[in-house]
Amino acid sequence: MSEDKKFPSNKKCCSGQIYSSIAVVGLGLIGASLGAAVSKNNLAAEVRGYDIDRETVEMAEDGYYFDSAHLLPDSCYTGIGSAELVIISVPVIDIPVVMEDISEKIGPKTTIIDTGSCKGFVMEKAAEIFTDQARFIGGHPLAGSEKSGIKNLDPELFIGSDFVLTPREQEIRSDKLEKLLKLIGGLDARVKIMDCEKHDRYLALVSHLPQIASSGLAGFIGDEENLIELLELASSGFSDTTRLAASNSNMWTDITLANKDRILEAMEDYLKQIETLVDAIQSENREEVKRFFEKGIDVRKRFEELKGE
Amino acid sequence: MSEDKKFPSNKKCCSGQIYSSIAVVGLGLIGASLGAAVSKNNLAAEVRGYDIDRETVEMAEDGYYFDSAHLLPDSCYTGIGSAELVIISVPVIDIPVVMEDISEKIGPKTTIIDTGSCKGFVMEKAAEIFTDQARFIGGHPLAGSEKSGIKNLDPELFIGSDFVLTPREQEIRSDKLEKLLKLIGGLDARVKIMDCEKHDRYLALVSHLPQIASSGLAGFIGDEENLIELLELASSGFSDTTRLAASNSNMWTDITLANKDRILEAMEDYLKQIETLVDAIQSENREEVKRFFEKGIDVRKRFEELKGE
Repeated sequence: MSEDKKFPSNKKCCSGQIYSSIAVVGLGLIGASLGAAVSKNNLAAEVRGYDIDRETVEMAEDGYYFDSAHLLPDSCYTGIGSAELVIISVPVIDIPVVMEDISEKIGPKTTIIDTGSCKGFVMEKAAEIFTDQARFIGGHPLAGSEKSGIKNLDPELFIGSDFVLTPREQEIRSDKLEKLLKLIGGLDARVKIMDCEKHDRYLALVSHLPQIASSGLAGFIGDEENLIELLELASSGFSDTTRLAASNSNMWTDITLANKDRILEAMEDYLKQIETLVDAIQSENREEVKRFFEKGIDVRKRFEELKGE
Repeated sequence: MSEDKKFPSNKKCCSGQIYSSIAVVGLGLIGASLGAAVSKNNLAAEVRGYDIDRETVEMAEDGYYFDSAHLLPDSCYTGIGSAELVIISVPVIDIPVVMEDISEKIGPKTTIIDTGSCKGFVMEKAAEIFTDQARFIGGHPLAGSEKSGIKNLDPELFIGSDFVLTPREQEIRSDKLEKLLKLIGGLDARVKIMDCEKHDRYLALVSHLPQIASSGLAGFIGDEENLIELLELASSGFSDTTRLAASNSNMWTDITLANKDRILEAMEDYLKQIETLVDAIQSENREEVKRFFEKGIDVRKRFEELKGE
């Protein structure tokens, strides 16, 4: 028990610690929750946070999950050189900027991951910036919500969720990947290793397109003259289908542009299907209209079976 | 207290009873839940149910909400002539058939309502079938879920929800409407009176189109070669946005065809907006992409404020 005293009071014991020090750059919902989850599960001896927003840094300092929090760019990433793992959790479009900023400050022993929702864009930039490829492993925790910011921090956000990693060929058997797998296991998340092209195509289909459809469903009625009267008639179906529409617009603008090609492909296929339905309704082709709804039921049922819903 | 004995044990007292007898034709989720809610709240002395499905009729008989349940067409609507209120809660496309079947059996004192999700189609047929117009009042309880059937019956389904009525001019000040308002109040639902054209346009926007978008989002990935691998990556956003896709395909085929013109109008506007986004993504017009998401946020926020979510 005497060993406990070497660590801050919120650290349970050193036995489970996987990293000596973790630096989280970007303390939004995902970054802050990752830092908190690592801290709560005692997976690192030290957890440092970095953000460009003063209030966010203060909240991280006031909470008990971060050992220290630093304002950017003023802090010049103080102490990031000693971090064994750096988690870049800033908006997708800013990930290359952070990579550039830190690339000179960190040594070859440091593992770097990101948490961006599209990986092709990130992996390409990483290949340009980090000449020692084995340092960078693309990451994407499939967790989050329409809420954002450190104020919604949840150290249990990753429990039972998937955490995709997109390592390059040369990293697949590296010690760095092995350690990262242990960390993710320690968050009670499930690791999924896949190549970044597949990740981006799949995410366009099951995440980016649903976001667009949801925002579109809410947005297109915005010009209605009697919007409030109209919304009074909206019930649970509208509520579920448009929940995502509340999500951060900057984040989704970034993701949409970063995964542009895959999203356009997905939208094209989705629109084709909707246009087939338009034709079927116009010609009152009952069988064809029914087929449209049945295709949806079939996929939804498989999803529910898979997720045990 | 002695008066209680005149009524089945589940009836609290006769004082709140609004109708002597109610007949519910069609014991799906809405019809069965309406019958159960009327019975539970003791709003009628007798509640009868009618359905074409033997198992459904047996379930209504076995439950304690219905005083009797009758199989159609065998029962020839036994006893429906004595009902003071008939609620037609069959698929939209079958409402005119039921109207034809019962029109000769019921007298001028009986009020008839339906629960269909589009009202123009229903009101038109009612005008043809019931020459005494004042007997028919269009109804649409804005409650329900992706679940269906009497097995999902919920006597509390209407509490706090809206119940739209679309009476014609001549019914607006009728005693029949007054009584119906009391019944709906007794279910703890809120009445909204509006003309059927407005109802159908609004419902296309906040109910029928969300259903189509949701079914479409689930359905269009159905042809994916690795559907299960893909669905494993789907998380809460996909889950919410496609929840409606599980809904009954026959019901939605009926609604889509019955509200054809309004739905096509709504789809056209929705598709236009999505196509504007396609153009903005292709030209990497960041401001335009962001505007798309911000329009969605704006409407969603108004919705949440309105509903206190």
